[in-house]
Amino acid sequence: MNTPAADPLQRLAALLSRLPGIGEKSAMRLALALVRADPEYIRTLAEAVGSVHETLKLCRSCCDLTSTEICVRCSDARRDHTTLCVVAQPQDRMALERAGFYRGLYHVLHGVLDPLGGVGPGDLHVDALLRRLGANEEDSATVQEVIVATSPNVEGDATALYLSRLIAPLGVRVSRIASGVAVGGELEYADVTTLHRALQERRVL
Amino acid sequence: MNTPAADPLQRLAALLSRLPGIGEKSAMRLALALVRADPEYIRTLAEAVGSVHETLKLCRSCCDLTSTEICVRCSDARRDHTTLCVVAQPQDRMALERAGFYRGLYHVLHGVLDPLGGVGPGDLHVDALLRRLGANEEDSATVQEVIVATSPNVEGDATALYLSRLIAPLGVRVSRIASGVAVGGELEYADVTTLHRALQERRVL
Repeated sequence: MNTPAADPLQRLAALLSRLPGIGEKSAMRLALALVRADPEYIRTLAEAVGSVHETLKLCRSCCDLTSTEICVRCSDARRDHTTLCVVAQPQDRMALERAGFYRGLYHVLHGVLDPLGGVGPGDLHVDALLRRLGANEEDSATVQEVIVATSPNVEGDATALYLSRLIAPLGVRVSRIASGVAVGGELEYADVTTLHRALQERRVL
Repeated sequence: MNTPAADPLQRLAALLSRLPGIGEKSAMRLALALVRADPEYIRTLAEAVGSVHETLKLCRSCCDLTSTEICVRCSDARRDHTTLCVVAQPQDRMALERAGFYRGLYHVLHGVLDPLGGVGPGDLHVDALLRRLGANEEDSATVQEVIVATSPNVEGDATALYLSRLIAPLGVRVSRIASGVAVGGELEYADVTTLHRALQERRVL
């Protein structure tokens, strides 16, 4: 029989299954697609991977991925430089930008506090965030509010609490995105924790 | 704003979203994972992709992917060489092998008839299948049964019918895998077509 090490297809599938959201079956499906793909596509894909590795770096201000020193958002004078929205990952920033209503700046932590997973404050881009709230040599406006938009789960909430304790003494307002039953969602199908929080954080109408 | 062409991350995500089962969001998630992946992983992955392209070819007998002239199954004398199971894709063969009870040989068509999608008999490895049912210089045993295990949908059924018309005149028995309500599934949740077929193909107990 073919052993996994001897079979190049199994080996490729095993490598692909290490990527996020790719299970064993999707990995094999992807591996087979790559076998069938025309060499031109493979070459372009390899170039694109090389290109992101060469050109992408972290914005010196907000730590988002960018191919320039300062990203397009941080260097956009039309945006509100007095408000920072703190997100865990670049894809969270993308989701908020897609929604299209937020006009302030961002700060990307590249993770959330997760003591069990071995992620401490030193592993996140917190120092860079604190620098932005300090002397502000670069930003013309001083930051007045930091909105913590980490996901409403144990790690995201702990990160928000940790940041609020660091930032509040600097005289900057710290807020947290609202969480509760999703808009358009059915109360009936919301999980217990969501319902609990929706009740706890009820607003007076 | 970053335009898709100018942003290497968007470009990589766009390329990845062309792979099967990868939507827009998973493509971006994969692109970000590839940005963060260590260069050693990227190098190994590129090598693995190159390796499948260089080493994998179609088995001269069953048309399955293999790195040898004749695949391990076709060259295994302990398997039943009188029965061929015809599948659409290598992953279907893998699913049957994982199940572990089938001991005959396979034949991989690399597709199913799909006139609307522009896939005709000439695009499938049907000729190779017919050759296996003919003179049989290589196989010691003559094939006695061909089990068509294409998926039970319009294209899979049409392919099975087409093959049975070609093969039956050769004096080889052609059978089709059973289809109906999945074992362990709930009748209540089965779709109309499945229920219809489950009734039509009922067996006397």
